[in-house]
This record gives sequence, C-alpha cells and structure tokens, in this order.
Amino acid sequence: MSTYTAPLQDMRFVLTELAAIDRVAKLPGYEEATDDLVEAILDEAGKFAGGVLAPLNFSGDQEGARWVDRAVTMPKGFKEAYRQFVDNGWAGLSLNPEHGGQGLPKVVAAAVQEMWKASNMAFSLCPMLTMGAVEALELVGSEAQKATYLANMISGEWTGTMNLTEPQAGSDLAAVRTRAVPHGDGTYRVFGQKIFITYGDHDMAENTIHLVLARTPDAPEGVKGISLFVVPKFLVNADGSPGERNDAWCVSIEHKLGIHASPTAVMAFGDNGGAIGTLVGKENEGLKYMFIMMNAARYAVGLEGLAIAERAYQKAVAYARDRVQGRAIEGSTGSVAIIRHPDVRRMLMQMRAQVEAMRAVAYAVAAATDMAMRHPDPAERARQQAFVDLMIPVVKGWLTETGNEVASLGVQVHGGMGFIEETGAAQFFRDARITTIYEGTTGIQANDLIGRKIAREGGATLKAVLAMMRQTESELAAQAGLASIRSALGQGIAALEAAGGFIVADYAKDVRSVAAGAVPFLKLMGIVSGGWMMARAALAAQAKIAAGDADAFYPAKIATAQFYAAHVLNTATGLAQEVVQGGASALALDEAMF
Amino acid sequence: MSTYTAPLQDMRFVLTELAAIDRVAKLPGYEEATDDLVEAILDEAGKFAGGVLAPLNFSGDQEGARWVDRAVTMPKGFKEAYRQFVDNGWAGLSLNPEHGGQGLPKVVAAAVQEMWKASNMAFSLCPMLTMGAVEALELVGSEAQKATYLANMISGEWTGTMNLTEPQAGSDLAAVRTRAVPHGDGTYRVFGQKIFITYGDHDMAENTIHLVLARTPDAPEGVKGISLFVVPKFLVNADGSPGERNDAWCVSIEHKLGIHASPTAVMAFGDNGGAIGTLVGKENEGLKYMFIMMNAARYAVGLEGLAIAERAYQKAVAYARDRVQGRAIEGSTGSVAIIRHPDVRRMLMQMRAQVEAMRAVAYAVAAATDMAMRHPDPAERARQQAFVDLMIPVVKGWLTETGNEVASLGVQVHGGMGFIEETGAAQFFRDARITTIYEGTTGIQANDLIGRKIAREGGATLKAVLAMMRQTESELAAQAGLASIRSALGQGIAALEAAGGFIVADYAKDVRSVAAGAVPFLKLMGIVSGGWMMARAALAAQAKIAAGDADAFYPAKIATAQFYAAHVLNTATGLAQEVVQGGASALALDEAMF
Repeated sequence: MSTYTAPLQDMRFVLTELAAIDRVAKLPGYEEATDDLVEAILDEAGKFAGGVLAPLNFSGDQEGARWVDRAVTMPKGFKEAYRQFVDNGWAGLSLNPEHGGQGLPKVVAAAVQEMWKASNMAFSLCPMLTMGAVEALELVGSEAQKATYLANMISGEWTGTMNLTEPQAGSDLAAVRTRAVPHGDGTYRVFGQKIFITYGDHDMAENTIHLVLARTPDAPEGVKGISLFVVPKFLVNADGSPGERNDAWCVSIEHKLGIHASPTAVMAFGDNGGAIGTLVGKENEGLKYMFIMMNAARYAVGLEGLAIAERAYQKAVAYARDRVQGRAIEGSTGSVAIIRHPDVRRMLMQMRAQVEAMRAVAYAVAAATDMAMRHPDPAERARQQAFVDLMIPVVKGWLTETGNEVASLGVQVHGGMGFIEETGAAQFFRDARITTIYEGTTGIQANDLIGRKIAREGGATLKAVLAMMRQTESELAAQAGLASIRSALGQGIAALEAAGGFIVADYAKDVRSVAAGAVPFLKLMGIVSGGWMMARAALAAQAKIAAGDADAFYPAKIATAQFYAAHVLNTATGLAQEVVQGGASALALDEAMF
Repeated sequence: MSTYTAPLQDMRFVLTELAAIDRVAKLPGYEEATDDLVEAILDEAGKFAGGVLAPLNFSGDQEGARWVDRAVTMPKGFKEAYRQFVDNGWAGLSLNPEHGGQGLPKVVAAAVQEMWKASNMAFSLCPMLTMGAVEALELVGSEAQKATYLANMISGEWTGTMNLTEPQAGSDLAAVRTRAVPHGDGTYRVFGQKIFITYGDHDMAENTIHLVLARTPDAPEGVKGISLFVVPKFLVNADGSPGERNDAWCVSIEHKLGIHASPTAVMAFGDNGGAIGTLVGKENEGLKYMFIMMNAARYAVGLEGLAIAERAYQKAVAYARDRVQGRAIEGSTGSVAIIRHPDVRRMLMQMRAQVEAMRAVAYAVAAATDMAMRHPDPAERARQQAFVDLMIPVVKGWLTETGNEVASLGVQVHGGMGFIEETGAAQFFRDARITTIYEGTTGIQANDLIGRKIAREGGATLKAVLAMMRQTESELAAQAGLASIRSALGQGIAALEAAGGFIVADYAKDVRSVAAGAVPFLKLMGIVSGGWMMARAALAAQAKIAAGDADAFYPAKIATAQFYAAHVLNTATGLAQEVVQGGASALALDEAMF
C-alpha cells in the first residue's frame, strides 16, 4: 500500500519564508520554539506519520470501525498506534503547559497536524476532537471541571467529542432539542439523541469526555437557549480515576462514503434515567462558546484538504513514474513512463501547485493566529486577529474544495487502476468528500466570509489584505523572470477587488443575489490568496538563487509558482464575473420549476 | 430510496428544437420513426427505467455482483429485470432490422439510453457492451459469424463483451500479448489474460459472446499485429443452441469504487487447452475495427455523464425541497426548506444548467450521426461525419467530467446526509468516477481532439462549427431579453477561436506544449458547445413564448440558459488563456523534482 513521506523541505520553506516562524518564536511564551526544536519535532512527527499511521490508513479503511452491543471496536492496529501517539507526547503539542501541554506555536502544530491528517485522516480526527474539547474546557470550564478532565485529555489518556448535531438540527443549531434537567446537586441529567458524533465511542482510550449542547428547562427558543454540558462516558471518581458507566451510549455508527476507520456515532443520552453532566460556563451561552472554538475546528478541517491533497499527490507521482504506457507524443523508441505524457504532467503540476499554495496559505494563517494571541502590541494583535477571522472560512472552504479536486486528479492519474479500491487512490477521493461538509459546508463558510467577515466591516480587512497583495505584486516588478506571475497576480488582485467591492456595495441592498455568489467569491479569494503566497514563495526562491544557493528546490518552486499563475490564477477573472453578474440568474427560476 | 423520473419534456424539447428529429425522421430507413412512435417509445422507456431499473440501483450497489467458483451471480432482481428488458424488446432498439433489431434512429436511442444509464448505470453497461459487440460483428463478421451470433445478441438473449485491456496494456493496446493460434480447422485457440472486462461473466443470459483482441503467431509487433476474435462462453451447436463450455473463464472480479452491480472481470482464456475462437474480419486489422466502433462506445460513455448528472439533480432537488434548516438569509419567521438558500439554489442551477447543456450537445451529435449514416447527399454525410468526429471526444470528455462535478454537487446539497451511503447521493458520486477513465481517459479524448480532429485538418471542421456558433450569436441580437446570453456566448466563441487557432498554429511546432493544454481545451470546447446549444434553446423558447405558448417550461429554459451564461460560460476566457499560455509551465519542472 502507498507510503507517506512528510514534505519536510517545503514545510520548512513555508514556515521560514512565508509564515515568519522567526517572528512567532519571539512571541512571549514561545521562546522554547527554537529552530532546533522545531526541526526535531517535524522530523519525529514525519517518522511517526510515515512509519506508524500511514501503514494503517488503507487497512483501517477496509476493515472500518465496528459497532457491537453499544460499543465500537477500532480497526486492527489503531489502539496500539494511539497508545504510541500518547506515549510519545503528541496529544498535547500545542496545548496549555499549565495542564501538561507543550505549548508550542499553532504554526508548528499546523505542520504536525498536516502530517497526521495526510498519513491517516480517520485516525487524526480523534486527537483533533479532543483538542477542541480541551480548548472549550480551558476557556470556560470551572476549576473543578479543569481539575477533573484537562490533564488526562491533554495527555491523550482520555479523548473528547463535540455533540452538536441532531437529526433536525444540522447546520441550524437553533433547532437543538436535547434537554438538560438540573438534579438539585449541581449536576444535570441530559436526555436526547445526537448524530454525526465523531469518535463518539471507541476502544483506544479509557474514557471519553463528551461536550454536549442541550437546553435547560424554560430556556428561550432558538440559539439563545442552548447551553454546553460536559458528560463523561465514565463518571470520574474522587481520586480522578474513571468510575461508574454514565448513561451516554453509542447506539449505532454510520455507513459512510469514507473515513471508515473513524466511528461516526449516533449517541443516546439518558435512555436509562439520564446522563449525568455538569454545565460548562454559563447557562444559555453554549452557542457563543461553540463559535469561539469554531475557528480552530474549521482551520483544522481546512488542513485536511491540504493533507489529503499532499498524500494523493505523492501517490500519483509514484504511479506516474512507475507505470509505463504508450509512446511519447513527440515520438519515442519505446513506451515511456506516463509522467512523460504532457497531460499527466499537467495533472501532477495542478496537484502540486495547489498543494503548495494551500500549505502556504494555511501556515500563514496559523502564524497570524499565534501573533493574534501573543503579540505584545494590542493593535498588532487586533490586526492579526482580523486577518485570521477573514481567512478562516477561506482556509476551511477553499482548501477542502481544492483537496477534493486534487484527490480526484489523483484517481485520474491512475487510470483504470484508480477505480480499483486496492490501489488506494480511491480512498483519498472518498475520505476527502466529507471535508467540504462537516464543520460547516462550503456554502456556510462562504456566507460567513461575505457577511460577517466582509460586508459587516465594509471590507476593511479585505482591503488591507489586497494592499499586502499589491505590495507583493510590486516586488515582482524587479524580477523579469517572474513576469508571468506578476501579470497573473495582478489580474487576480483586480478580480478580487472588483468582486469584494461588489459585495460591500450590494450586500445590504440585495443580500440574496450577493449570497448566490458567495461560494464563487470564496473560491476566488482562496485562489488569489494562494497566488499571492506562491508569488511570495517565488520571490523568496529567487532571492536564494541570487544569493548562490544551488538547491534544486528553488527553481522548482519558481516553476510551480509559474504553473499556478497560468493554470489556477487564470480562473480569477471568470469567478469575479460570476460573483458580480451571476446573482440574478441563480435566483430567477421559479421554485416550482425545479 | 431515490426515484427516477425520465425528463420527458426536456428530452422532447431537445429532440424537436435542437436535434432536428423531424429531419432525421425523413432519412431513408427511418420513415417509421414518426412523432407518435417516438413519443410512445420515450414514454414506455421512462416507465421501465423508473419502475423496473431505478429501484434496483441502490440495492444493486449495496449487494454488488458476487464471484464464486469462476462464475458471477448478479444482485437480487437483476436477472428478472434483464428478462423483462429482453422481453420488452429494448435490447435491439437501434440495431439492424435485418437481424431482428428495430432500426430506430440513434438520436432516439440516445434518449432511451440516457434513461437506462440514469436509472441504473451498472445495469445499462450490459446492453451497451452487447451493442458494441453486435456492431463489430455486423461490420466485419463473416456470414457464418453473423448467422451464429447476431439474432440472439440483438434480441438480448445472449450478451457481448469487449476484451481489450491486459495488465500491461491499458490505454496502449500496442502492448497486447494474448495469443491466438490457428488450429488448422478455421478456428483458433486463444491464450491470455484480460482485465477490466465489463460483464465478463454474469447469470442474466444463457451465453456471453466475447470479442477478444489477440496476436496470431508471427504477427508484427505493436498495433499492427492485433487481430479480433469472437470467443463464446458456450460454443454454439449446429442448431444454434449453446453447447459445450468454452475455455474462457472469469477468474475474479474487481473490488471497485463504484458500479458495484456491474461485474468487472479478470478473464482467463485458454488455461485448460485453449479457448476456441474464430477470427473476425482480417488478420492484423483488429485495432482498426476497434477504432471504428470507438465512436459509439465513447459516445455511450459520454451519455453516462449526462445521465448520472440528471439523476443526481433529481435527488438533490427532492432533498432541497424537503429538508427544512435555518432561516432565510434575508430573514424569515421560521426555518425554511434549504432550496430557499441562495447557495443551494446556485448549486441546483449549476447542476440543472449543465444537465440541459449536456443533453442538447449529446442529442445534437446523435442526430448528426444519423445524418452522417443516412443522408442521401454524400457531401452532407461527410459534413455531418466531420462534425461527429470532432464532437465525440467532447461528448465523452466534457460530459463525463461535468457528470462528476454535478454528482459531487449532489452530495454537497445533501450536507452531512450526502456522506451517508444509505442516502444514495454518494453512489452517484462513486459511479460517475469511472466515466472519465474507461473507453479512454479525458486526457486521451483531449489528445484525439486536438491532434486527429483539429490539427490534422488545420482546424477546418472547428472553423465550420465556430461559424454556426456565430450564426446563433447573431440571431440573439434581435432578442433584447437574451442580451446576457449573447454577450457570454460571444466571449466563449472568441475564447474557443483563439485557443483553436493556437492549436492549429503550434501543434506541429511544439506538440508537447500544445498537448499540455489539451484537457483545458476540451473543457473549453464542451462549455462553449453547451453554451451554443443553450443559446439555441433560449431562442427556441423565446419563439414559443412569442407565439403565445404559456407553458412555464419556456421561461424556465431561458432562465436556465441565462444561468449557464453567467456561471459556466464565464470560465471560457480563463480556459483559453490556460491553453495558449500554460504549456511551457506545465512541462518546466524537472522530472526528478516531482
């Protein structure tokens, strides 16, 4: 089965040249993130991903998580791999040192998470969900809750889940019906059914800590009446050990298109008297807490798009080098490896260029997150946070849409073998398909982008980003060899400016027409952001070459950036046209006529 | 599970207004294809597709074809459905009346095939392959072969297969190694293994007639040494009944991403002394025969892209009407069906507009096929055949690429439910994925398009098509209400002209760079052809409205054409840029650097 090799050189290049890890490492609290430590962490994570997680990816998919008698058994090898993951200290990498985390910068954690997700996306979801639950408890948990749960969750001994969705409440949490009834002793009894609960049950850890959205009696209707509760699978004894089994059960798992090794549970709370839980934070503030955590969760799913694309690219390259089929189009004495065929080459470049652009955008946003949290200057923190808020829906939406496209190209490079499950390319294609859906569909990201992130502030942050892009464009002017990149980036910036201006101008006037162009706008913003980063990458590579660095990585980076300009940025003008001119026709058809 | 309703009104509209079925029905031999008969056939086919085939689509996928002891058992219900299919006379619809076919025009058969493929793609592959084998035997079979096989194959009592691929010979048939040794009695003994053989074995018919590419002893190397053989599963007795079992066995079937009910066989010929076969046509001419049949096979796979898209669209519309989730973006008193959300509406329109454009292109090409075969004027036949030859790779490549896109949008409309296999949307997404691969990948179609169909003739047929498109563009000038369509079509035509001109000018000079843009060019050509047809559709609808026809179908057609102009044709200029400017960067990266 296919292997995975962490793309360490590109990761380091992006961290150093585009995500300013040197500046991040100077932030208060990150002093330990020295070059040497980061280097060592990336190396070790690459070994763990390639050596332990990647070999379980295909077998995990084929075997799948199994549900018997209200309990989930993980596929062969997962329990042991998770044990190693915990023992090696990977669970708490970027988490709070106060409770045992290592407190490394988010931007370093992003590179490491990319590796987990690329090597075994189904596995990676368990620590990802745990991290989300940890952050919620750190943020708004009581001291007692923190003392009870955090240390074991940060170490990874216990895992966490997020219980939001119900059958009638998917994207719309206003419709949540799960009830939480005060028991008079400070605890609540939780009753209700939750669906789509990732790792809702499994056998890799001794306890699972559920965070559950529910309504207290007499809570107001809609989103204003939702509270957050912590409901452990096993109640925790006074000595901190897992005790009595709580009334929270996995009553089935879903039969899904992909991520078969990740159990997607239907959870029943309170079928036998009530699941015991405690309120997290304040009553009726549950949705607010969810929103605070949402940036991290959406960012992490965005990384999945990048990660699967990288894995699909590696597999496609290996196959294209290996598979001999047909003569070269310009003539050849014998058959050639298909990597020689121009269309296969184009597909590989399309995969590669988008992977590199996605990585650059993702790490740059992670670095900004670190800046936004830790920079000593409040104005700089605010500026960085605004950039992060603007870019989160782009990272989530564009990286996952592109991840799907790249995974599909990976199947295509394999020809007929791509359709055969044993080849493994199809798994990436199946696994990727959830990423544009969960943690908010692309449409939801796009509405967030144009509404809360752009229209609401009159496009201020977007304008600041456009100015930074223009700055890069002008830096390209001095480099004759990068003229095609400059021209395409200029086109892209103009397109983004036009479409962004339209959104700001028309959002209040005709929100439906503008919203009909939300997803094309999100794609446009992703593509141009990627082009901006690839242009910066080309400039950095050019500088290395000019300084005498002979590493072939740098000319390759420039070639990839030039490809991106001609084959990805070329779509920007058409997308802007669609945003500006397409709203009315998207809504014109009478509903009855569909 | 989801239903399927044949889109009869749009089919009739396309046949009448865009595919000139009135002219087809006047061709010699098609006199019986009266309006009434065509109407009755479409009605009945729609009932069979919706009532018999569609209900087996999901169960067939879940159960899959099963292989035990060198024989394949079809999923529950398939055998009975196939019996009905044969009894109702569907197998020979467009086949030669001389051997029992009904001899209906290809354009009528196209509409009917769309229904089989939309209702149950896995089922439809069996009659499709049989039809290909029938056409080969009709074309170059001996009288004895025709007498032995044709009547039973045209009736559907026996089915047919095409055995081309071997592990080392996928797209490159030059590498075929299967041997055929003369036995001295006019028969051959065939030895070798074939893979990816659709319906290589099954239990729906009493005999399976394999057409097999193989090399005779001392045949020249490469494609010039390939001959075609007919190898029945059961040898045929003198009285025409199936007799002794031949040495052609299904030794396994593939575990695939989709079309699970369609058995994809590994066939072993001659493991027990030699499979008895007879030569079809002349020795060493096998590849030529394959090429002659290829147009029909590629066309039929193109229809699969359309058909799955139609089915995915119907399912998405039904879900979007039914699923209530969230408030309207402009505000609403309660939750609304998601069809109200602008982005869901945009997705449904993107699906619908592309389905309608694909159907129009596909049927227009089918009508041209009828004209090319039957028109009394040889010059007109040649003109129509040139159009067909040009468009076949577009129908195959663009319809299947678009079918994948539409099936993926179908999943997206379903949100989280789309990822759950029980919903059924994921099946369309999985099934569609093979269509851009088999019968020649999109890359192979695109090379055929730019090389053999455009560059080789200096772009003559393309220019003729562009002139027809310009004609439609000028007709739009008189219709103020269609101005946005005219503008977008004009942009599209200009883009296609520029990219086509580049291909003609540069193909001989720099074939690798031009070939790197082959797939973007194919997509461009598909998109602009679709835009041309949608513009013609809008004109026809406008004429109906002007004539006082109050059917809501016509304003809906115009709205859909306007959507296509703003949301699909808008990509044309960017694609042309990619073709003209993108070749060098696609090939620039050193092979070792991937």
